[in-house]
Amino acid sequence: MATADATDLALHCRQIADAARQASRRLATLDAEQKNKWLLESASALLDATDEILHANAQDIAAAPTFGLSEAQIDRLRLDAQRIAGIASGLTEVAALPDPCGEIIEGQTRPGGLKIQKVRVPLGVVFFIYESRPNVTADAAAICVKSGNAVILRGGKEAAHSSQAIVDVLHRTATRLGLPDGAVQLVDTPDRAAVGHFLKMNDAIDVTIPRGGESLIRRVVSEATMPVIKHFDGNCHVYVDVAADLEMATRITENAKCQRMGVCNACESLLVHRDIAAEFLPMVAAVLTSRGIEMRGDDESRKIVDMQPATDADLRAEFLGPVISVAIVDHVQHAAQHINDYGSHHTDAIVTNDYRTAQTFTAMVDSAAVMVNASTRFNDGGQFGLGAEIGISTDKFHARGPCGLRELTTYKYIVHGDGHIRD
Amino acid sequence: MATADATDLALHCRQIADAARQASRRLATLDAEQKNKWLLESASALLDATDEILHANAQDIAAAPTFGLSEAQIDRLRLDAQRIAGIASGLTEVAALPDPCGEIIEGQTRPGGLKIQKVRVPLGVVFFIYESRPNVTADAAAICVKSGNAVILRGGKEAAHSSQAIVDVLHRTATRLGLPDGAVQLVDTPDRAAVGHFLKMNDAIDVTIPRGGESLIRRVVSEATMPVIKHFDGNCHVYVDVAADLEMATRITENAKCQRMGVCNACESLLVHRDIAAEFLPMVAAVLTSRGIEMRGDDESRKIVDMQPATDADLRAEFLGPVISVAIVDHVQHAAQHINDYGSHHTDAIVTNDYRTAQTFTAMVDSAAVMVNASTRFNDGGQFGLGAEIGISTDKFHARGPCGLRELTTYKYIVHGDGHIRD
Repeated sequence: MATADATDLALHCRQIADAARQASRRLATLDAEQKNKWLLESASALLDATDEILHANAQDIAAAPTFGLSEAQIDRLRLDAQRIAGIASGLTEVAALPDPCGEIIEGQTRPGGLKIQKVRVPLGVVFFIYESRPNVTADAAAICVKSGNAVILRGGKEAAHSSQAIVDVLHRTATRLGLPDGAVQLVDTPDRAAVGHFLKMNDAIDVTIPRGGESLIRRVVSEATMPVIKHFDGNCHVYVDVAADLEMATRITENAKCQRMGVCNACESLLVHRDIAAEFLPMVAAVLTSRGIEMRGDDESRKIVDMQPATDADLRAEFLGPVISVAIVDHVQHAAQHINDYGSHHTDAIVTNDYRTAQTFTAMVDSAAVMVNASTRFNDGGQFGLGAEIGISTDKFHARGPCGLRELTTYKYIVHGDGHIRD
Repeated sequence: MATADATDLALHCRQIADAARQASRRLATLDAEQKNKWLLESASALLDATDEILHANAQDIAAAPTFGLSEAQIDRLRLDAQRIAGIASGLTEVAALPDPCGEIIEGQTRPGGLKIQKVRVPLGVVFFIYESRPNVTADAAAICVKSGNAVILRGGKEAAHSSQAIVDVLHRTATRLGLPDGAVQLVDTPDRAAVGHFLKMNDAIDVTIPRGGESLIRRVVSEATMPVIKHFDGNCHVYVDVAADLEMATRITENAKCQRMGVCNACESLLVHRDIAAEFLPMVAAVLTSRGIEMRGDDESRKIVDMQPATDADLRAEFLGPVISVAIVDHVQHAAQHINDYGSHHTDAIVTNDYRTAQTFTAMVDSAAVMVNASTRFNDGGQFGLGAEIGISTDKFHARGPCGLRELTTYKYIVHGDGHIRD
């Protein structure tokens, strides 16, 4: 659908959502074997369709300069046979994961004999909004269908041809294997109003998962009428305690800040216990400066190391680049309070060798992941062993931290009686 | 606070919410013993304060006619020594339940030695909006604090004095035991605008739970900026299959419809397999009619039993009274489709002796609870063994079905390393 007036667009989105809802009812009744067969045959079909996908990708690459993409962005957009093989093996990996659906989470026989089971079932329909890398198209489709959900994919326009070619392959495989038509659908209009239409359809869509910049995510949250799995940002902290191994603290701070800067679990703020600040700050400053990191400190830390002053905004910022804020704290409780007040509830770490201090920190810090003597960079579905990840949540409701297959499910109670009535 | 201008009210609500947030940080670190001590001593303090509570209750009873309460409503509002003892024993029962917080839901040691735990923790702050019965004030406070949450209680104005007297007792006990001040707060203004202020504070409130009429709940859902645990209504079905024991089907239908009519898990719609309709409908009609139930049927069922026609709205309705809609279906798939399209995703039952039909029904019906050969009336926290219930959810996100202590929790990842950094 290349162009459309407003009514046509609304109708088109409605048709997509209704098809997804219908498909979700069927998908919920498939067993793991049927879903895995689709994943494995789709993997092989993607390899067979390498030429077709590369042809589509060439159209995206040709159009990339008109979208103002940088060289690095164009590189992430570019596919070759090896990358397509990588996409295919991603599907194979999801096939190897256990099916979360049908798990009997718990159950009991009640006095009187009523048998109550709490059984894991799919959420239903996922609306997934994502950045332009075409591999995400296949990953998200795999995770959603494996967890028994239908998915409506809204990818970046920069990868429109590549994503459509990939979805065409997934769709043909689904049709051949008798999976429902609406299981995987790509929104095939660049019209931004389409997103607004879908966000109103809480009768047909069970969850929206936006990935991208904070402004996109804020727009989605403010318009969505259904639950949203998301994180706005990640102002992650490393707190170096008085009882820290300072060499370890330096290594962890360097890794958390520098190993990959543009990601949500990178460290943006360093908190240092007052009593070791004079020793530790010069150590860590030497390493961070050698890595090209700009430090911005509070008044006290600037008495120890020469750096720019940190504003209140700096202490709240997700820099996503070579800047770190620094503050001195009095004790672990002070550190935890600062993290709860200034942080993003994403990932926060302590470095300490004191047993009770570690326990206080993990109890008090109200974040999705709390690390002791480990880099913040470990908060990741792969590192946590989820196998596949569709996003990270900083919310507390439903799913917190990395979201994999199980986070795309809910449960229902199935109750078996023998003519039971209530007194 | 008797009266307030708009700015004062907003400020007052903000202070309540901030106090709750602060309290929630402390409550999250309490162990079960501390919380149980508060519950048990509050129970005993409520008994000691019987005169004080009855005095407050007398003020509510005196004011009741000015709110236009019916005799039945006034009776539910009225306390006596025995009812206060019941409220106190409710607190004792919650103390006896296991503490959900601190449960290590799962955990693993990753290759490389990082130890990952998924630990159950409180949601934080609950905003609870409820009907006028004063016992709910104590129940809700007990469930929230036992699950480690601070609670902001917004009760009906009809029970304002009684609720305040109960909260005063809970509060005094909390102060004496060193629990944080903001753990249990009652919104002490009748101004309806207060609810709107709280619903905007998603920085301080983690979940809103409204109980009451559908219009109140729809208002809350449309204004809330935080997650809401709720059900709008319960259009619950009983489907009588061709393979049903028709005596059992009659008993279950009668129980589901008549045992208590004004509740969300009562049956509102009866679906009957075409092939047993001629035999079953007269049987069930005789019983329902003798119980004073009006039946409204589709065209086919009206050829068998004389009744008023059921409109499409009747088939979607939650009557909460002596009316039931009736429709003929062709098979179990048809019944499941009808339930998914017309129902409330609350509680739906099948009566059948056919093994595969029962399995098809439980797999296809997309409701919080699906019953086989049991009355819909069993979907209830007490009946399901949750011990205490703060509401029933028909949503799929976070919590579905009866919500007890555990449904007021989330989890966080606690990760222990030994200087681990990421490659």
